[in-house]
Amino acid sequence: MGSLNDIGVAAGINILSAVGFLLVFAVVRIQPINDRVYFPKWYLKGTRSSPRHIGNVLSKFVNADVSTYLRFLNWMPAALKMPEPELIEHAGLDSAVYVRIYLLGLKIFVPITVLAFAVLVPVNWTSATLGDDEEGLSYDQIDKLSISNLGPGSKRFWVHIGMAYVFTFWTFYVLYHEYKVITTMRLHFLANQNRRPDQFTVLVRNIPVDPDETVGEHVEHFFAVNHREHYLSHQVAYNANALASLVKKKKGLQNWLVYYENQHAKNPEKELTIKTGLWGLWGEKVDALQHYKTTIEELCKQEDEERQKVISDPKAIMPAAFVSFNSQWGAAVCAQTQQTSNPTVWLTEWAPEPRDVYWPNLAIPFVELSIRRLIMAVALFFLTFFFMVPIALVQSVANLDDIERVLPFLKPIIERNGPRSVIQGFLPGIALKIFLIFLPTILMAMSKIEGHVSLSGLERKTASKYFLFIFVNVFLGSVVAGTAFQQLNSFIHQSTNKIPETIGESIPMKATFFITYIMVDGWAGIAAEVLRLKPLIMFHIKNTFLVRTEQDREQAMDPGSLEFGSTEPRIQLYFLLGLVYAVVTPIILPFIIVFFGLAYLVFRHQIINVYNQQYESGAQFWPDVHGRIVTALVISQILLIGLLSTQEADQSTVALLPLPVLTIWFHYVCKGRFEPAYIKFPLQEAMVKDTLQRANDPMLNLREYLKDAYVHPVFRSGDIYELLAMDEEENPHLVATKRRSRMTTPVDSKFSSSSGTNEGEFSRPRPS
Amino acid sequence: MGSLNDIGVAAGINILSAVGFLLVFAVVRIQPINDRVYFPKWYLKGTRSSPRHIGNVLSKFVNADVSTYLRFLNWMPAALKMPEPELIEHAGLDSAVYVRIYLLGLKIFVPITVLAFAVLVPVNWTSATLGDDEEGLSYDQIDKLSISNLGPGSKRFWVHIGMAYVFTFWTFYVLYHEYKVITTMRLHFLANQNRRPDQFTVLVRNIPVDPDETVGEHVEHFFAVNHREHYLSHQVAYNANALASLVKKKKGLQNWLVYYENQHAKNPEKELTIKTGLWGLWGEKVDALQHYKTTIEELCKQEDEERQKVISDPKAIMPAAFVSFNSQWGAAVCAQTQQTSNPTVWLTEWAPEPRDVYWPNLAIPFVELSIRRLIMAVALFFLTFFFMVPIALVQSVANLDDIERVLPFLKPIIERNGPRSVIQGFLPGIALKIFLIFLPTILMAMSKIEGHVSLSGLERKTASKYFLFIFVNVFLGSVVAGTAFQQLNSFIHQSTNKIPETIGESIPMKATFFITYIMVDGWAGIAAEVLRLKPLIMFHIKNTFLVRTEQDREQAMDPGSLEFGSTEPRIQLYFLLGLVYAVVTPIILPFIIVFFGLAYLVFRHQIINVYNQQYESGAQFWPDVHGRIVTALVISQILLIGLLSTQEADQSTVALLPLPVLTIWFHYVCKGRFEPAYIKFPLQEAMVKDTLQRANDPMLNLREYLKDAYVHPVFRSGDIYELLAMDEEENPHLVATKRRSRMTTPVDSKFSSSSGTNEGEFSRPRPS
Repeated sequence: MGSLNDIGVAAGINILSAVGFLLVFAVVRIQPINDRVYFPKWYLKGTRSSPRHIGNVLSKFVNADVSTYLRFLNWMPAALKMPEPELIEHAGLDSAVYVRIYLLGLKIFVPITVLAFAVLVPVNWTSATLGDDEEGLSYDQIDKLSISNLGPGSKRFWVHIGMAYVFTFWTFYVLYHEYKVITTMRLHFLANQNRRPDQFTVLVRNIPVDPDETVGEHVEHFFAVNHREHYLSHQVAYNANALASLVKKKKGLQNWLVYYENQHAKNPEKELTIKTGLWGLWGEKVDALQHYKTTIEELCKQEDEERQKVISDPKAIMPAAFVSFNSQWGAAVCAQTQQTSNPTVWLTEWAPEPRDVYWPNLAIPFVELSIRRLIMAVALFFLTFFFMVPIALVQSVANLDDIERVLPFLKPIIERNGPRSVIQGFLPGIALKIFLIFLPTILMAMSKIEGHVSLSGLERKTASKYFLFIFVNVFLGSVVAGTAFQQLNSFIHQSTNKIPETIGESIPMKATFFITYIMVDGWAGIAAEVLRLKPLIMFHIKNTFLVRTEQDREQAMDPGSLEFGSTEPRIQLYFLLGLVYAVVTPIILPFIIVFFGLAYLVFRHQIINVYNQQYESGAQFWPDVHGRIVTALVISQILLIGLLSTQEADQSTVALLPLPVLTIWFHYVCKGRFEPAYIKFPLQEAMVKDTLQRANDPMLNLREYLKDAYVHPVFRSGDIYELLAMDEEENPHLVATKRRSRMTTPVDSKFSSSSGTNEGEFSRPRPS
Repeated sequence: MGSLNDIGVAAGINILSAVGFLLVFAVVRIQPINDRVYFPKWYLKGTRSSPRHIGNVLSKFVNADVSTYLRFLNWMPAALKMPEPELIEHAGLDSAVYVRIYLLGLKIFVPITVLAFAVLVPVNWTSATLGDDEEGLSYDQIDKLSISNLGPGSKRFWVHIGMAYVFTFWTFYVLYHEYKVITTMRLHFLANQNRRPDQFTVLVRNIPVDPDETVGEHVEHFFAVNHREHYLSHQVAYNANALASLVKKKKGLQNWLVYYENQHAKNPEKELTIKTGLWGLWGEKVDALQHYKTTIEELCKQEDEERQKVISDPKAIMPAAFVSFNSQWGAAVCAQTQQTSNPTVWLTEWAPEPRDVYWPNLAIPFVELSIRRLIMAVALFFLTFFFMVPIALVQSVANLDDIERVLPFLKPIIERNGPRSVIQGFLPGIALKIFLIFLPTILMAMSKIEGHVSLSGLERKTASKYFLFIFVNVFLGSVVAGTAFQQLNSFIHQSTNKIPETIGESIPMKATFFITYIMVDGWAGIAAEVLRLKPLIMFHIKNTFLVRTEQDREQAMDPGSLEFGSTEPRIQLYFLLGLVYAVVTPIILPFIIVFFGLAYLVFRHQIINVYNQQYESGAQFWPDVHGRIVTALVISQILLIGLLSTQEADQSTVALLPLPVLTIWFHYVCKGRFEPAYIKFPLQEAMVKDTLQRANDPMLNLREYLKDAYVHPVFRSGDIYELLAMDEEENPHLVATKRRSRMTTPVDSKFSSSSGTNEGEFSRPRPS
């Protein structure tokens, strides 16, 4: 635990590194060669293209214009300049609402900080209990500003209790107001959207088997009868995972073919050969052009066969379908109602956007779904509380002596003293580090097994799981030392009212640790985010060694996306820290405010210039965000009760008990008031939109418009673009934006293949 | 704690008293004078009328036919004879499903008992741990049959763990199967119902205020636009509580007028006078006939004024309406969808049956509803855990010395020794007894404050509250001595894993107590139920002193109803006891089986011959019943874990932990599979019924049919019966049943007045 001095030093280091990152960013971002790393969004929108100066070659790579260096901090005001409506149009509602989470942090914590420094800090500072005594626990200057300075039984605790109420009510107010604003934004966004296939379409799952009819006929008959006046058409879902992998493989090979053709055109003399074995390193040497041509031909044949098989084989038809209606009203009705007396068949829900669909999960039967969720719930429990067990095992196995025994030829290296100590110090951490890097992927895989049908749903579920993990292993793990399992064990064997006391008691002592954490993970981490070190390096590697065609350059550019599932829970940790420490050690609050402010700036810049979202869910994640902040609030209140009850302030427990009750009630009020807007679609809005659309475009052939909207990506051919173009002609001012963004969203998004791994198009082709 | 002998004695006494009740019942039920007490249901159906023998006067009162006495147990097979479909038609689905709860008890516990006696009892009996040692805890013969006989660390616990699994899976099977059967019954019942207004009607609440339109116009415009093809008509809800009380008062006075007119006709000479003061005991003497005539005339005027006021005053219109549709499909759609983007206005739900509506709650705004629920949740917590506090206060105030001081003239009575000791022993219990008698009423009042809009909903919510109370105060209160608050306090200060241990440990020792409880509360209580002692006495008192007209006699007959809110939670206690003791002390099981068997018999008899349900909800309570049995199962498993972990059988905890997880999962599976059938109405069924009805009756004027269905009871005049008669002409085989049952169901049901108290029509009129 550090004194104010130590914290000052740590702050200095972290501020320096953050400023360093920002400076480097300011310089590298204006180099033309990095343009595609820092402005991919604009490339994808088609308003920017590779710089082709007529000047010298150097200016293609390095920016020689001195004046731009002087304005190197320009991006900051620029990031703030774009007004919100334009931001929504530019980057989508999801992104615009996502940066509002940081803004929400500022809205909650700036007034709380002001109040805490005006009231609580003087109250704490002037109680001179600490400082004199030198007992077992080491107190320091930070603690003089915290609640620990009051000493047991102090009357001044009533100030803290009062402030806990003030902070809670302020948080209620901000949360309620924000929920309201975002709900309005969502409804407005949905109302102003152009015609989209998902507005007319409902996803129907668990279609029962009919011995006399195919799935398609069954769907047609069922909806033609039960939604007589509204049913329009349907699109059965095919199990095309095998076909998808063939298509992907063909695409990779085609890139190589183009590359060799280019090489051949440049230098027709040189014979181009490759080896057919693994990774192109072994095996028979053959002519490259010829090889790729024949392989692609073979694949085309296979693909055609597979396509025929999928279309004709009844087993390839999944018991799921996208059913379209002739009005939004009809679709809204079907999505919200129960179809038959058996609630496990003919399940209807709003269809996700076509690009948001997670195809492999469409066909899971009801009972299997329940079993999968049970297993995943148990797995999540073990992952959260016992994840240290396998890692400890790996660590114990992977010590140097064992390695020496198994791989004796490494002995001379290991025996040397220098490397030994480095490795010895390095190895134990590496298993944990690898685990933590892969954790979001593991959690995403678990969400996939749970069977959600949209990418946005998968991200939301992953975020919930990740928040649980962070809360248990980062927050509780830091406050109460020991692994999660040890904590769990000790909590079970502890009296119920002792648990908040144990945790609450150590809260003030951990303030310094968390301040450092905020500076390292928050400040420097956010500054590193804007620099995009990994995409920067990856782009240049790819650009140098792998880019063969203009299309490749487009693909080498990795705009990334917000990754809600892994980033949002980390923000929530800051809300949790802020709310827990607001009353206890207010000195932590300015650090959190700096984090929120910086992050707001950086992420606003990133969504304007960099990220390209995979899908648009219309801020459907907000109820989750809201719910987790409310959870953090309840946790903070319970811990405060625990802390105060160790301070011989017994009435405080009674005085504070209404707070969690009120907070939970507040949660239900908000849920009832706003949540339906994120789940259901009101009939009034649907009717208004139907009426408008009928008036604007009475001749529209909706059946034709919806015909191919929900075809599995691998079946899509060029006509989808014609369709979109047709649509956009009606809205000329949006042409550029929409067409480009649809085109550049990978049509077979990275989740649509069954493998789920992210093998790029750049790995060398394996022999088929 | 008693030995087997003691239990034998207790059983003997209780069997004797139960048999005694049954014998008395067998004799009194065949006396003609009691006919209206034991067969009211048949009178209400119109198939039975007051006995009018031509023989001697005595035979009107006493049954002299000896042969009927010989067949005095005939009612038992008769109760079982009526097949279930007929029972449903005769008494409604609610009642038929209610008796199935007892049958469910038999289905669960008979096989469990057989298995437990075949396996567990021998295993327990042959472990001779107890009996030799004479330690602190007093064990007895019952304990030799229970798990306590095994002693710590015994390997035989594995048998119990295995049986816990077997019992759990058997319970799963029976519960799942029963849920399925009852869901089918419900759907079948709904599908076969005749046309009823509630099938076409949706209750709309929280209609927003429109400055330019009345509520009625607003509703009309909204639904005509947003449900264009389906909207038919609407009926605004009036706040007619004042009018309702006037109507009630007039009705009472009219009865008196008829009575005096009868008296006058019999004996025209005698002058009939009454006193106008309180209760007719004080005040000026006036001519009775004249007095009532003028009072009624006055009331008629007041009533007309009030009626005009309600109809014309916009303030009397509540922001709620019953909206009817031209098809069930339209109503099903409206009930299940969200209407506008603000989910706190235009709330739609299926309209309850007209007689099931709880009118005073129709107008509560959304936010007020949340606040009311918060307050009631807090109130329920305090009621459950602190109800002893005010009672103890009353008890301490109401001791004899205080009474003596306040009311000195009672001194001579109190000072005498005899009464003093009686009162002294009696007083402390009386406050508690009064509280317990009024508890269901208190809980019902709380449910009313929570704002549910149907009587069936109120009953269900009351049942949930009552179950919580019984679980905490009867079950836990008996197992762990001390008041609920003391328990709560000790649980909070106890380690989490100690709580199930503490409770689990005392479970086996309380077996004898619960066996006695089952015999007193279950056996004798059920036998007393069939005798209907209170209605029997009340009927004869009323018949002798108050019955003046034939209508009065009809009203003196109190058929009662099932009172789901107060009786179902008591059944649940038996499920809980059975599941908890099945593994621990199986000797308790036969007593529970006898209870379920006897209760099944008695309640089947009662619903056939006695009870007259106020409403028909179509077994909507089943998800609650199912949920509480699952809760009991989880509780039993946790207590078993607690018990075994005190017996040095540590692996048992691990071996049993999957059980509660599986049970909770089972609950969610059942919920997903069946619950929607109790909340939603599938569109397919609606479409089928619409098609059938259109084919059967193409000329029906639905608007006319629905016109007055949802008029507040006080506005209803004779034409409602014409309407019903019109309806029934199409179904000639049902005429008698339906018309009579509608007529005799109090049109202004006892809950529809704002006062909520149950003043009969027989109290003497107060001066107005």
